[in-house]
Amino acid sequence: MTLDNSDRIRETVTRYLDLIANGTSADVAALYAPDATLEDPVGTEPKHGREAIEKFYAALDAVRNTTELLTIRVSGNTAAFHFRVVTDTGEQTITIEPIDVMTFDDQARITSMRAIWSPTDMVVA
Amino acid sequence: MTLDNSDRIRETVTRYLDLIANGTSADVAALYAPDATLEDPVGTEPKHGREAIEKFYAALDAVRNTTELLTIRVSGNTAAFHFRVVTDTGEQTITIEPIDVMTFDDQARITSMRAIWSPTDMVVA
Repeated sequence: MTLDNSDRIRETVTRYLDLIANGTSADVAALYAPDATLEDPVGTEPKHGREAIEKFYAALDAVRNTTELLTIRVSGNTAAFHFRVVTDTGEQTITIEPIDVMTFDDQARITSMRAIWSPTDMVVA
Repeated sequence: MTLDNSDRIRETVTRYLDLIANGTSADVAALYAPDATLEDPVGTEPKHGREAIEKFYAALDAVRNTTELLTIRVSGNTAAFHFRVVTDTGEQTITIEPIDVMTFDDQARITSMRAIWSPTDMVVA
């Protein structure tokens, strides 16, 4: 049971990174539970609910992203993962490698997301 | 101000890993705020307060550890860091590479620690 849920959590994270690269903001928001929260980066005002979350990801729809999972750890209903996202805006390439912490419900939907990174971690080329 | 606090948080994490390797359980507990919480691994019953936290680290006093910081991200009052701890029990060597998430007060004392790892992440040699 614990192991199964851990596997499903890993699947959701894999799908999340795939959709950040290849999906729409609506696709990404659909991975979240309806009443989920999102705080990205940590210290900013959290977003509440899928509608606000979809709006947060709307910037995705205008750019091209590639993503790569670097490390993931899962414990109970929580995952922490270090990943790389490279954003091609057409004018420049921005690389960020945050550590995200997510919690999940029994259906492995994201109930909260907190992204830990700072502007000093961004590489612009 | 934000930048200063971020630097002090990084210092506390560096000292934390140094004390896991070279300090006593009391040294490590002293990095925590008096009313801090510790959940290691996430999903287990959290410990509350410095006394319970010092007891949690008591196992340190019987073994030899080396530690290495692999990645750290700091955002607001929160740090997430991926690190390696190698424990030499005298009979075997146990390697774990958790991702820990810590929050801090204004003095960069740890107010909460959550360690995300699972037994499947352990390597015993």
